[in-house]
Amino acid sequence: MIRPSVLAMKGYTPGEQLNDPGIVKLNTNENPYPPSPRVFEAVRAALTGDRLRKYPEPMGDTFRRAASEVLGVSPDSILIGNGSDDILTILTRTFVPEGGRVASLTPSYTLYKSLAEIQGASFETVPFAADWTLPTPWLLKDTHLTFLANPNSPSGTALRPEEVRALAEQVPGVFVLDEAYADFAEDNGLSLLAECPNLVVTRSFSKFYALAGIRFGLAVAAPEIVRELAKVKDSYNCDVLSLAAAATAIQDQDYYAGLRSKILATRGRLSAALAELGFRITPSQANFVWCRRDDRPVKPIYEALKAKKILIRYMAYAGYGDGLRITVGTPAEVETLLAELREIV
Amino acid sequence: MIRPSVLAMKGYTPGEQLNDPGIVKLNTNENPYPPSPRVFEAVRAALTGDRLRKYPEPMGDTFRRAASEVLGVSPDSILIGNGSDDILTILTRTFVPEGGRVASLTPSYTLYKSLAEIQGASFETVPFAADWTLPTPWLLKDTHLTFLANPNSPSGTALRPEEVRALAEQVPGVFVLDEAYADFAEDNGLSLLAECPNLVVTRSFSKFYALAGIRFGLAVAAPEIVRELAKVKDSYNCDVLSLAAAATAIQDQDYYAGLRSKILATRGRLSAALAELGFRITPSQANFVWCRRDDRPVKPIYEALKAKKILIRYMAYAGYGDGLRITVGTPAEVETLLAELREIV
Repeated sequence: MIRPSVLAMKGYTPGEQLNDPGIVKLNTNENPYPPSPRVFEAVRAALTGDRLRKYPEPMGDTFRRAASEVLGVSPDSILIGNGSDDILTILTRTFVPEGGRVASLTPSYTLYKSLAEIQGASFETVPFAADWTLPTPWLLKDTHLTFLANPNSPSGTALRPEEVRALAEQVPGVFVLDEAYADFAEDNGLSLLAECPNLVVTRSFSKFYALAGIRFGLAVAAPEIVRELAKVKDSYNCDVLSLAAAATAIQDQDYYAGLRSKILATRGRLSAALAELGFRITPSQANFVWCRRDDRPVKPIYEALKAKKILIRYMAYAGYGDGLRITVGTPAEVETLLAELREIV
Repeated sequence: MIRPSVLAMKGYTPGEQLNDPGIVKLNTNENPYPPSPRVFEAVRAALTGDRLRKYPEPMGDTFRRAASEVLGVSPDSILIGNGSDDILTILTRTFVPEGGRVASLTPSYTLYKSLAEIQGASFETVPFAADWTLPTPWLLKDTHLTFLANPNSPSGTALRPEEVRALAEQVPGVFVLDEAYADFAEDNGLSLLAECPNLVVTRSFSKFYALAGIRFGLAVAAPEIVRELAKVKDSYNCDVLSLAAAATAIQDQDYYAGLRSKILATRGRLSAALAELGFRITPSQANFVWCRRDDRPVKPIYEALKAKKILIRYMAYAGYGDGLRITVGTPAEVETLLAELREIV
């Protein structure tokens, strides 16, 4: 009864979500700080019997108006999503037929492969160069959808907007610029939308906005693309409380600029300390740091930290190697991590 | 760039969601009463910085344990959904290939057709008999997925469990028993799961639990089916606040039994009064009433009510005819409706 493509696939494995409060959790790139106090107020205000018992706005128009002003795009170029994963799912279902082709650079977000598999499409990867730059020219033809995570995970590196534009122009089909981490970066690709008709930019509220728990993300694209995506999304894919939280968060840029400064400062200290301990660091534009070692395998380091209740991510990529991805936590969490690492290495 | 099946489709049109507080809203079968007071407490308790900034439980295990006890099924036979529409979407993607076949009785929930269209599958309908009973024997072969809404919308009628079992045994492929309204009915099909390996039962929290705003639904099926569905769902498809609300709601059966009694009493009064006004009523097992007229078209009645800020649903089905679907509101809302109807007819 089950589709062969689904039966054969392994399924995406999300990062470990352990509820033990004693754990230092640096494995899924959550924001170590709470969301804006105004978000709590907004959710409390939406918490009425009338709001809970009634369906939410199908397209999230109140949110779209708020986001429109902050992002400088028209409301009808915004699609709301139940997390940015919902957006990536909708994009795959809209553009990729069964038997079609999905492409991504690699190493990158492994969900792209799972989405292709669910759709019954093939998944093609193009390796980043060793310094995380693009291979040129782009070799893949006949792809329906190409994903670029920018900044990328696990590397934390980001291509410049002109490099992204050049890639969007070369790629056949739709080009998805997954900007889950762009709010931590020096630049982003929103301004490319005017020039690239095949471009869709996606954003997450799970990292920068410290709202992984409420599931919210968005896409920005040409209104005629958004109209088609809206046919594919569930009618009421975002709930009243999430919509209230997201609309308030995106309007409180001052609060989040403060969190960003703290996280970038801690990222600098973490990167420098890891380098001192002999790790090979990739300069990061995201809220995590990717590090590797030339002198010893890193999986035992991940395991030793886990035994001490410090959770980071060990990642191995076929044909590429492995490394550790460490979320930028609070200064205290990072000190705890570094103290243990000094024992281990 | 857009898949032909998506480009060609019209897209599901959700019921009108008007925010005008002066409207008597009897068009989308929301519960006229607020959810349990304990739901508000649970959401407030979950509203902490730590819960919002971290990802929720991917499979909703805390909710599954609570629901398991109430429903009398094992936790690993439950799949959580971002509304029951999310569940229906996951089922379609798991079982229906592009070019496959989806079937449903008709008239029924029109989303089934949209889900087939998005998947690039054909959609076959089998008409209910005029008295809303099943055609026998079941004629369709080679279908991948068959939907039965029970109680059905727009009719409000329900097949008995033994009729459902007989249909599940005849249907090729997977049989989805969509029980969005079953909590208002005399019976349900959960006990059939032990006998029918191709059966999936789905439930909504939007109607009985008065939680349309927070988007929650579930499926119950054999654990080996749930494991495959879990590969297809988004990793974090339900958020922390919705999970807290749903787990608390399902455990407060006393509160909801009280709402049910009130709604069933009002449904009886509404049905009797509509019959007195010359409408042909179908006895309902849901929280709405389906009514038609032999003496005049009903669309003008819908329009006249809308002009008076009373919103009900006008529905027309190809080859079947049309009618009005009226949600059971509060006694005061129903009185307002009946007073206007007495003017109109």
